Amino acid sequence: MAEKRQNTKNRFAAVGLIGRPGTQVADSLQAVIDCLAERGLEIVVEDRTAGMLGNAGQATADRPSMGRHCDLVVVVGGDGSLLGVGRDLAHTGVPVLGINRGGLGFLADISPERIHRQLGEVLDGEYRVEDHFLLEAGVFRGDERIDGSPALNDVVVHPGSMARMMEFSLEVDGEFVYDQRSDGLIVASPTGSTAYALSAGGPIMHPSLDAIVIVPMFPHTLTSRPLVVRGTSEIAVTLGTVDRAKVNCDSQVDFDLESGDTVRIRKYATPLRLLYTYGHSFYESCRSKLDWASRLGGRD
Amino acid sequence: MAEKRQNTKNRFAAVGLIGRPGTQVADSLQAVIDCLAERGLEIVVEDRTAGMLGNAGQATADRPSMGRHCDLVVVVGGDGSLLGVGRDLAHTGVPVLGINRGGLGFLADISPERIHRQLGEVLDGEYRVEDHFLLEAGVFRGDERIDGSPALNDVVVHPGSMARMMEFSLEVDGEFVYDQRSDGLIVASPTGSTAYALSAGGPIMHPSLDAIVIVPMFPHTLTSRPLVVRGTSEIAVTLGTVDRAKVNCDSQVDFDLESGDTVRIRKYATPLRLLYTYGHSFYESCRSKLDWASRLGGRD
Amino acid sequence: MAEKRQNTKNRFAAVGLIGRPGTQVADSLQAVIDCLAERGLEIVVEDRTAGMLGNAGQATADRPSMGRHCDLVVVVGGDGSLLGVGRDLAHTGVPVLGINRGGLGFLADISPERIHRQLGEVLDGEYRVEDHFLLEAGVFRGDERIDGSPALNDVVVHPGSMARMMEFSLEVDGEFVYDQRSDGLIVASPTGSTAYALSAGGPIMHPSLDAIVIVPMFPHTLTSRPLVVRGTSEIAVTLGTVDRAKVNCDSQVDFDLESGDTVRIRKYATPLRLLYTYGHSFYESCRSKLDWASRLGGRD
Amino acid sequence: MAEKRQNTKNRFAAVGLIGRPGTQVADSLQAVIDCLAERGLEIVVEDRTAGMLGNAGQATADRPSMGRHCDLVVVVGGDGSLLGVGRDLAHTGVPVLGINRGGLGFLADISPERIHRQLGEVLDGEYRVEDHFLLEAGVFRGDERIDGSPALNDVVVHPGSMARMMEFSLEVDGEFVYDQRSDGLIVASPTGSTAYALSAGGPIMHPSLDAIVIVPMFPHTLTSRPLVVRGTSEIAVTLGTVDRAKVNCDSQVDFDLESGDTVRIRKYATPLRLLYTYGHSFYESCRSKLDWASRLGGRD
Repeated sequence: MAEKRQNTKNRFAAVGLIGRPGTQVADSLQAVIDCLAERGLEIVVEDRTAGMLGNAGQATADRPSMGRHCDLVVVVGGDGSLLGVGRDLAHTGVPVLGINRGGLGFLADISPERIHRQLGEVLDGEYRVEDHFLLEAGVFRGDERIDGSPALNDVVVHPGSMARMMEFSLEVDGEFVYDQRSDGLIVASPTGSTAYALSAGGPIMHPSLDAIVIVPMFPHTLTSRPLVVRGTSEIAVTLGTVDRAKVNCDSQVDFDLESGDTVRIRKYATPLRLLYTYGHSFYESCRSKLDWASRLGGRD
Repeated sequence: MAEKRQNTKNRFAAVGLIGRPGTQVADSLQAVIDCLAERGLEIVVEDRTAGMLGNAGQATADRPSMGRHCDLVVVVGGDGSLLGVGRDLAHTGVPVLGINRGGLGFLADISPERIHRQLGEVLDGEYRVEDHFLLEAGVFRGDERIDGSPALNDVVVHPGSMARMMEFSLEVDGEFVYDQRSDGLIVASPTGSTAYALSAGGPIMHPSLDAIVIVPMFPHTLTSRPLVVRGTSEIAVTLGTVDRAKVNCDSQVDFDLESGDTVRIRKYATPLRLLYTYGHSFYESCRSKLDWASRLGGRD
Repeated sequence: MAEKRQNTKNRFAAVGLIGRPGTQVADSLQAVIDCLAERGLEIVVEDRTAGMLGNAGQATADRPSMGRHCDLVVVVGGDGSLLGVGRDLAHTGVPVLGINRGGLGFLADISPERIHRQLGEVLDGEYRVEDHFLLEAGVFRGDERIDGSPALNDVVVHPGSMARMMEFSLEVDGEFVYDQRSDGLIVASPTGSTAYALSAGGPIMHPSLDAIVIVPMFPHTLTSRPLVVRGTSEIAVTLGTVDRAKVNCDSQVDFDLESGDTVRIRKYATPLRLLYTYGHSFYESCRSKLDWASRLGGRD
Repeated sequence: MAEKRQNTKNRFAAVGLIGRPGTQVADSLQAVIDCLAERGLEIVVEDRTAGMLGNAGQATADRPSMGRHCDLVVVVGGDGSLLGVGRDLAHTGVPVLGINRGGLGFLADISPERIHRQLGEVLDGEYRVEDHFLLEAGVFRGDERIDGSPALNDVVVHPGSMARMMEFSLEVDGEFVYDQRSDGLIVASPTGSTAYALSAGGPIMHPSLDAIVIVPMFPHTLTSRPLVVRGTSEIAVTLGTVDRAKVNCDSQVDFDLESGDTVRIRKYATPLRLLYTYGHSFYESCRSKLDWASRLGGRD
């Protein structure tokens, strides 16, 4: 398989394809392949995805090398699938387009029944690029970085088990913020502000905002509130005495923590380049997905 | 017009009819009249409502006397119309049935397109009675009660104008609770817990609960939270130095307050007897009206 | 050791003593013993507590039998210690008095430095009794009750691990309320409303209120709110498909759950009888412990 | 009075002095004057402030011209006084230092009892400059800007009277966000995020963040949440049919609105240059002023 060719006029030559594991999305995968084949584009199927498709003769690649082989990666699944692809491929700079087969789809823009038309538009060069920055969580024991991962939505430091408290100290840009006793802490990117952090009382942040939100989970003081800091800030969470604790990236990857460990969170070096159709609007997503039209009653 | 006759088997003989002012509900009013006429029931139209109906020859009465003349009052409008009828007629003990022509309809159970079937069921004796207690707000200057009103949803003490603070002292059952500086205080019945108090962060209370909730409005301390007390409690809000302030019942009736005035709030002597069809369920109302089925995404 | 003698005029003859494990409370335990010995009262030390006191010759008993041997039990520790004693002794009806050696002390009324005076008052008959009802959580697999425990503060149903979702169905008094996807559910008594439920956004409920509050934990819908139901209600939480889940009583006792299990929560048969000095006030506890005096600024 | 001289090494030559109206701050004003006189600095007292000081022979100026005559303005009062000075002097670029005689003092850094030492440090060149951006609210009727004001904390659009609803449409950067029915909308700068917006459930934003937060007031939908957008965004609030409404800047300046008016809010051209002593820390202000150390109890 050749290295990706240069595309002209924002068009694509080699297109990667990743599907959520399971058979449910096979029809959408096939619709994507048909659409790519119509245009005579080179198709590179992720090796794990290829198994879901039968022997159709497409080239395959493992996910880590897809950034090298493709100049666009199409992901069929929900926002959860996009999160994994985002963490794995953001560093390659390859643009990613999501076909939404999941629940909500803030990230995956194209609905399955419109693959032919909307994917067609994107392949014809009609799209908007939106960079979504990731966070990077590093676990430090003493001075040594012993673990870490990027996260597209959020980094959650928590005691590993519910209804169990955690004591930790929070610093932002080297400044002490507070010692807290709570069920944990959510540190979210703007992208993640509409996910777990929102459930925990955090604000919605526009995806283009250069900011990070820190949301305490069931804090043992009534005065703790979500805190929004600059996107360039470094956030350090140092554990007090704990039996055990965990740090969790996008609710998909986690690492064990010990007493005294510090989790350092900062912006990841490269953003995820997400493609959207021209019609896409963040606020429209909010209106439809968060149901902003519904109203309370009682005073007509 | 005769005094109301005794009904047998929970049926009704003389039925009052009240419509929300305006012409929008005239068709529903007529549908109710048709349904009542089919059964040969005596119809008593509120005098203000009669003007909306043209000269149809029904008996009319003013609202205050409808409790005497009717053994059921049907209200066509939204929850707002029900609030007014509730305050005016609760003391008469007459049962009330709502046809929902407003926004939400926690109180008004019957939808306009089902008047014939559902009102018919009620008139045939198939209904459930749900007593909703009202609050009573009294304004005291010194020892004298100078004003007051019942309230079905809530009593709001506020500075009369937004973005202007108020200082007041709260007592419950003669015990000092706190001095507060805020934009006001909402005191709500269970019925009102799904209205204004809910917007302000109060909990939802089951209509059958014997409790009152006190919700601070934008308190100037982060530690103030909604407080739920017994339904038999007396709540006293005493104003500090203010330019002016108001107490507001159901967002429909208000009185002016002066520095040092005390607003005393307690359960009103008689509840509003609301009729519901057998199918009615408070939790079903919550599911449909508060949209409990909608979900956040981000983790599929 | 004799069965407890009848006390006259609300006074006590045999007083049990329970201390929080550890050596930190030994001085307060001794102060209590001195105070009891001065009055010639019979002292019954919990066997586990006796080890902390050295060989002082007092009678000992295991906790389960203390309700039989004592007509008052004094607990030295924090609210956490009181929770355990409450679950263990509520069914015996023995009154309990707390000496607060913990953090906050909504339940434990007497501060260590005032043991002599305040415990003395109580022993002289100057006290108020406040009944705090407990919840009872039963785990049902099919029709069989396989586990269960009382809980003074709260029953928490959760997925066992943080940042992991749970799907469950909620019924109250046999009525379907909602299907929810969240990090769990807190069901709290009025006593527990100032503990974990408060961190999760629940209202404060006066201890005398006959109500239970249901608070969703990070619900995946923005429209879920705390729900207050009657104290006599039965709450049933039925798990959907889960890998594993837990039910937790007072953050101290837990049981494993499987898919399809139902946790039934209702009021426990007997309340905990807590003694307070006459000066005690719930609202004063709120003011001092929740810091209701602190104010925001920005508009002077 | 001469135009201000150039200062060397970040020191000051002509220092303006503004005090909160009333006699309460006269002692602090005198302490500032003494400190300035010791250093032989030129003192320019605001004309309205001069009346509080007796005839002390200092030069006076009206507030609008103080930016021209001074290279530092010292304000004695609370954050409320700073808000007014900020709106009036931000456009001049003159740095401002606050002596806190008010409630909280996020903006006014120096406490009255430390005037001599801390003001001395600042005058000796030991200070940090922190730029706080202001918002600018413009009222548009049709295409015409008919009114407007800067605001340091927040711009609040509200119905003028409490417990009265407002319908409006929100656009950000020309994109439709939502139609809302609520008691109003708070648009706050990072500086204002710890004031009124915080009472209404908004997040805390670090003062250096380039962002604006939009907080709905008692929205009639449970799904509305605070929304954080870029500091360069333009926010437009267009009124639906209203009896009357108001726009309010910093709770100190307001304008009347009519149906169909649009309030446009964007960053003001020049920030307020606030001076702080080296010891100042935003997070330390949060800890002391929002009482982040207080803890809930119930689980010791």
